[in-house]
Amino acid sequence: MGQANKLKNQILMKDRKLGYRNFPMVPRVVYGRGSFDQLADILLPKRRNSDAPMIFLVDDFFEGKELQGRIPLLFNDQIIFVSADEEPKTDQVDALVAQLRETFDEPPSGIIGIGGGTLLDLAKAVAIMLNNTGKAERYQGWDLVEKPAVYHVGVPTISGTGAEVSRTTVLLGPEKKLGINSDYTVFDQVVLDPELVATVPKDQWFYTGMDCFIHCVESLNGTYLNAFSQSYGDTALTLCKEVFLKDLSEEEAQDKLMMASWHGGMSIAYSQVGIAHALSYGLSYLLGVKHGIGNCLVFQHLEEFYPEGVQMFNQMLKKHQIKLPKGVCANLSKEDFNTMITVALGMEALWENALGRDWKKVIGPKKLRSIYEKI
Amino acid sequence: MGQANKLKNQILMKDRKLGYRNFPMVPRVVYGRGSFDQLADILLPKRRNSDAPMIFLVDDFFEGKELQGRIPLLFNDQIIFVSADEEPKTDQVDALVAQLRETFDEPPSGIIGIGGGTLLDLAKAVAIMLNNTGKAERYQGWDLVEKPAVYHVGVPTISGTGAEVSRTTVLLGPEKKLGINSDYTVFDQVVLDPELVATVPKDQWFYTGMDCFIHCVESLNGTYLNAFSQSYGDTALTLCKEVFLKDLSEEEAQDKLMMASWHGGMSIAYSQVGIAHALSYGLSYLLGVKHGIGNCLVFQHLEEFYPEGVQMFNQMLKKHQIKLPKGVCANLSKEDFNTMITVALGMEALWENALGRDWKKVIGPKKLRSIYEKI
Repeated sequence: MGQANKLKNQILMKDRKLGYRNFPMVPRVVYGRGSFDQLADILLPKRRNSDAPMIFLVDDFFEGKELQGRIPLLFNDQIIFVSADEEPKTDQVDALVAQLRETFDEPPSGIIGIGGGTLLDLAKAVAIMLNNTGKAERYQGWDLVEKPAVYHVGVPTISGTGAEVSRTTVLLGPEKKLGINSDYTVFDQVVLDPELVATVPKDQWFYTGMDCFIHCVESLNGTYLNAFSQSYGDTALTLCKEVFLKDLSEEEAQDKLMMASWHGGMSIAYSQVGIAHALSYGLSYLLGVKHGIGNCLVFQHLEEFYPEGVQMFNQMLKKHQIKLPKGVCANLSKEDFNTMITVALGMEALWENALGRDWKKVIGPKKLRSIYEKI
Repeated sequence: MGQANKLKNQILMKDRKLGYRNFPMVPRVVYGRGSFDQLADILLPKRRNSDAPMIFLVDDFFEGKELQGRIPLLFNDQIIFVSADEEPKTDQVDALVAQLRETFDEPPSGIIGIGGGTLLDLAKAVAIMLNNTGKAERYQGWDLVEKPAVYHVGVPTISGTGAEVSRTTVLLGPEKKLGINSDYTVFDQVVLDPELVATVPKDQWFYTGMDCFIHCVESLNGTYLNAFSQSYGDTALTLCKEVFLKDLSEEEAQDKLMMASWHGGMSIAYSQVGIAHALSYGLSYLLGVKHGIGNCLVFQHLEEFYPEGVQMFNQMLKKHQIKLPKGVCANLSKEDFNTMITVALGMEALWENALGRDWKKVIGPKKLRSIYEKI
């Protein structure tokens, strides 16, 4: 820890010169079981006129389900169902924006994302792109967005991604998987209704919850960290441990995991993820493996880097009888491995956070290949 | 706990009918040691023109100190030093607003409060009243403010009040001590720089930290609570215990107490304070006892209601060799006691939170007088 603290201080000193990030928070949040039904009242004052619709981007899992009937449609509002089977893509965002521009004379009054990380990220990106020119891929990176987004609301229906509170929307572009990180990305409003997660399949519940857990282990063990982010990360980690290792009632587990995701997302303000995320980005880029399960597939083999975290993770797998897929990388070519390794090693900030400035001395293509081969 | 849970559920059901509060969060926060020096850059884009000044309301403790020289003055900006010896008053707000209207042709570009709870509350109230007509006392209550406040920034220089993040500004009016509770009260920007608390006198540090600790004990033991507020309250309480019962380095203690105050303030979203605050309001109304020390004076005698909390509080007093004043109520008349009792019993929501709907069966003037007499 002496070494880690030293590095941490070096980095904080560096930050201090550059200035600390002036972090944007979601300016409005409602939390409560059944709070989804307040959406009508929340949207009303944001409707510019009856020709400027509210657009609901909704996980197609909910098509024909009870929740669909509770979406507060008015005037020419539209529900667009989107599959969350794949990670969100920049050309998908471009297509949605083109569709909305073509269908409506007026720009939408608002974009409401209802679903998991994929839907929330799509809603953020569509809201940004409606007010900015060109293709979405142009804005992948840090602070490239020029104009404020259209009013946008996030309604998570699964807990763990932190997408409801983060200032990024992670998209798979033609060249890279990278977030549109900007102050304008942040939702204007979030509705946290733990009842909405009741229909999540168990595997999905676990993988997405582990997104939060792994994220916290990485950020709390990283060299980028201050008391602000630590306090949020500690809270999220404590809640994850309660949810996945204790015997809570179903309702309490839903309530607490929703809050774990929220605090986990906030903890990113002045921290960074680490090795699992870097490697998982490679898996996702090459094979389209979804973020939550991708993190789990990688994390199980990182005991060397996160001994306590991996041990807890194994307990959680066992308690919930989750069997991770095997042989995911079994039939890959040398070229495939190299693609994943290049993507993973490209995430320099993540490696620096995990291993310090001299991370290249500790880790290289060979080590990464040996981890990918186990997956 | 069965009884408490039942009550809690009754109240949540009631809430559900009315709708959960759509809670406003501070939309921008910067955290870090030395982050105060980013204030110039933060304010620059908010300056409407060179005739619309930034007004810095600053605790007069800092007059002539190093911090004064670091306040980023431009054009006709003004620093107004204010004593924090007394709680903020509605007529003080009215006088400040009148002074600003008289001095400047243009309304200010922004109001920046630099200090403890008194200064932060004054800054919030002045920012509101610059854009609203009449006297400040008119807006004491819930959601009475009609127009958005002038841009306002909070820079705490002591930790514990939660004023930096709350949607209220508690003012002593001619008739009552009551907050201006509104969505417009919330700061547009907060700067959390733990270095600024370095000059706080030890007693003041303790009393204000206890404001946070006692607030958490009350809200976590209350019947108004959900997972949102509990997660913030638990975090704040954990941080308070670390700061006041463990042996942290000075820097770490400063960092963590600043975060405790932040989370403690957030936890109020869906919770409520309790008995110590109700009684402390009475003390403050009659004798002008400041909020932090008032809470301590009361809380020491509440073991019956908060056994664990009071025990921890006594440990904290001992560890930091804090001697609370005695005989504060020794020479009061019957009328004085009645005044305090009336103010305290008027805080119905606080009593209901602490003791449930039938609180009037448990507590009355006699019991309150017996507690005040010990102080």
